[in-house]
Amino acid sequence: MSQIKRVAIVGGTHGNELTGVYLVKKFQQYPNLINRPSWETLLLLGNLKAIAQRKRYIDKDLNRCFSKENLQNSNFLNYEDTRAQEIKQILQPQNQPFVDVIIDLHSTTANMGLTLIFCDMHPFLLRLAAYLTSINSLVKVYINPQSKQGGFLRSVCELGFVIEVGAVAQNVLNAELFQQTEQLIYAILEYFTWYNQGHIPQINNNLTFYEYIGTIDYPRDEQGEIQAMIHPQVQFRDYEPLNPGEPIFRTFADTDILYEGVSTVYPIFINEAAYYEKGIAMHLTQKQQKIV
Amino acid sequence: MSQIKRVAIVGGTHGNELTGVYLVKKFQQYPNLINRPSWETLLLLGNLKAIAQRKRYIDKDLNRCFSKENLQNSNFLNYEDTRAQEIKQILQPQNQPFVDVIIDLHSTTANMGLTLIFCDMHPFLLRLAAYLTSINSLVKVYINPQSKQGGFLRSVCELGFVIEVGAVAQNVLNAELFQQTEQLIYAILEYFTWYNQGHIPQINNNLTFYEYIGTIDYPRDEQGEIQAMIHPQVQFRDYEPLNPGEPIFRTFADTDILYEGVSTVYPIFINEAAYYEKGIAMHLTQKQQKIV
Repeated sequence: MSQIKRVAIVGGTHGNELTGVYLVKKFQQYPNLINRPSWETLLLLGNLKAIAQRKRYIDKDLNRCFSKENLQNSNFLNYEDTRAQEIKQILQPQNQPFVDVIIDLHSTTANMGLTLIFCDMHPFLLRLAAYLTSINSLVKVYINPQSKQGGFLRSVCELGFVIEVGAVAQNVLNAELFQQTEQLIYAILEYFTWYNQGHIPQINNNLTFYEYIGTIDYPRDEQGEIQAMIHPQVQFRDYEPLNPGEPIFRTFADTDILYEGVSTVYPIFINEAAYYEKGIAMHLTQKQQKIV
Repeated sequence: MSQIKRVAIVGGTHGNELTGVYLVKKFQQYPNLINRPSWETLLLLGNLKAIAQRKRYIDKDLNRCFSKENLQNSNFLNYEDTRAQEIKQILQPQNQPFVDVIIDLHSTTANMGLTLIFCDMHPFLLRLAAYLTSINSLVKVYINPQSKQGGFLRSVCELGFVIEVGAVAQNVLNAELFQQTEQLIYAILEYFTWYNQGHIPQINNNLTFYEYIGTIDYPRDEQGEIQAMIHPQVQFRDYEPLNPGEPIFRTFADTDILYEGVSTVYPIFINEAAYYEKGIAMHLTQKQQKIV
């Protein structure tokens, strides 16, 4: 990639994640905040119907509809499949190249601060992350190669990534997190400007990141009903170490369930509201370092 | 009232407020936790369809459907109106008196700790509140006489009240708040036992409570779209004083909106997710004291 020519900033891929929705609306109202001379910025609200109804989605999770297969399927079955195809066309109008970058704005009830989620270890993204983590200690980096296959919006573009902010409740705007996210976006755009101008700042090039290992579900009975809650010692402790033998769940019968893994892990997405139905109580990650 | 004979504990009047839903499910599984010899306890899940769909409600807010007029209307228009009539019948089976007490379990994204919400200054409830606040500093008392007219479940019973716990996101179980709510329920049941036995403990009878003054909406444009967020200095500061001239909102244009009242107020329900659509950014209250 020689130059960044088009950047898409997307909010409301999930309709009840208001930080992204209102950041995009703010940028639409004050475009000078994100317009830069050396590229074109595209602002986009993802799941329009879900935003209007204050829901994550109408028929199915839009952020699982961007698989190649799905995007080529002409038998539209529901709103989100249709909307995913519309979004793809907006990101790549006929006879034009695809956008170079997608910044997909999400929020979570987990205490994940300002997390960058990447599908892979693309050197450009790793260096961007090293810069952002060096100027803001709230920034964390999560690499989840699984999400390359899952039909996520970020996966349709080589430099697609998510900014996942929390903890914030669904359908709530938290001004502090909103402003932190806004400042992070400006820092990203500044980095892109430097990149296009050919002079990236000197940074600490030792990047700490967290890599996907797997997910853990809540303990459930045969009917699928949950039998335990995230343990108080784990709640809001995203990115902190969880060691074998430490409590992970507290059952409704008031007993503790211990983590039975063989090594220390770093849970994230702990108690994300939208993941109960996906069978995910948390993601487990391993902490890594890399010179980028 | 000579004796308490029947107590109803209701969870899931709003389907996405999981603390109450799972406390009722826990008590259904372990009834000895709440059964007491001197009265009958009724356990009830309120909005069954909304609980199943992880939503606040299906067609309309169930907790606004309990007006006398609504309960006598035989032209059922939607699920919640029907369900409100069913619940009334469960609380008062034919030829039996109404339940003496309703404990309606709610949760909020506002930082309201363990709030008791009463419709009026019933002496029994005030003394109960004085006892509970004396043993647990997280317990707050909110008196909202407006809620007598609004069709709230708590209004159908002289000793109906809400336990409103937060901050917790919708569709999330927070184990710590869950356990605090559970312990509060046990303390309430213990108090009822003492009452029925005729010996209430000596308590500090000086009750601090917060009385409804009114509500404030978010600043909005002509289309009803919000133009500002709860100010970071106000967020999560439920029950703390807000003085005239102090910031209350932060606009998307990055300016502060100041509180223009004439006297100090104590906001609660600050940034409750479900109240955006009701046009409520917060309730304003005045702090009061009373010998009970």
